Amino acid sequence: MTDDALSVTFAALADPTRRAILARLAHGEASVTELAAPFTMSLPAVSKHLKVLERAGLITRGRSAQWRPCRLDAGPLADVADWVGRYQQFWDGSFDRLDDHLRQIQEGRTDDRPT
Amino acid sequence: MTDDALSVTFAALADPTRRAILARLAHGEASVTELAAPFTMSLPAVSKHLKVLERAGLITRGRSAQWRPCRLDAGPLADVADWVGRYQQFWDGSFDRLDDHLRQIQEGRTDDRPT
Repeated sequence: MTDDALSVTFAALADPTRRAILARLAHGEASVTELAAPFTMSLPAVSKHLKVLERAGLITRGRSAQWRPCRLDAGPLADVADWVGRYQQFWDGSFDRLDDHLRQIQEGRTDDRPT
Repeated sequence: MTDDALSVTFAALADPTRRAILARLAHGEASVTELAAPFTMSLPAVSKHLKVLERAGLITRGRSAQWRPCRLDAGPLADVADWVGRYQQFWDGSFDRLDDHLRQIQEGRTDDRPT
């Protein structure tokens, strides 16, 4: 049930190391060794994360066997933005309600205090 | 390594049933039975998905023991939108590059053809 593209993308993003790798690649392509440098992690462990990102289409890798630079591919992130954007009214709404609540407090209306 | 809030949110969203539940709740609060209706899934299976969503803060549940309506809580989705928004320049950029590429093809420039 979780092999649809969006689920694969969300699963790939559900890890802080993988998100840190994407953040690094936002500054430009990098080799596995360069990507591994900031992490206290073995190259095979980093490679495993890269495979997850590659499978999700979030990165692409160069073809040269010696130097296979990783590049960010933001296509799936655009799909995430599209999906989450449908809910924007709900968090905008939450802030509106918070605003209303704060305004009522400032105006001295205390009828919604817990009893 | 995956117990930070954003990772928990992404993991919760990495399932089409859970995303469908959120889409349903965008139309208003609903009981577990109402949420289970469109799925060929047992109530316990749906309850398990709801627990994942609740743990991620994506839904809240009423306190009455008999009728515990689920409600969408879009706060974590705002965090997702904030995170993914940082990459917007990259998919906008991708479309720009695609535009450039298509323009070059239309102009008869074929020097980037694979050899």
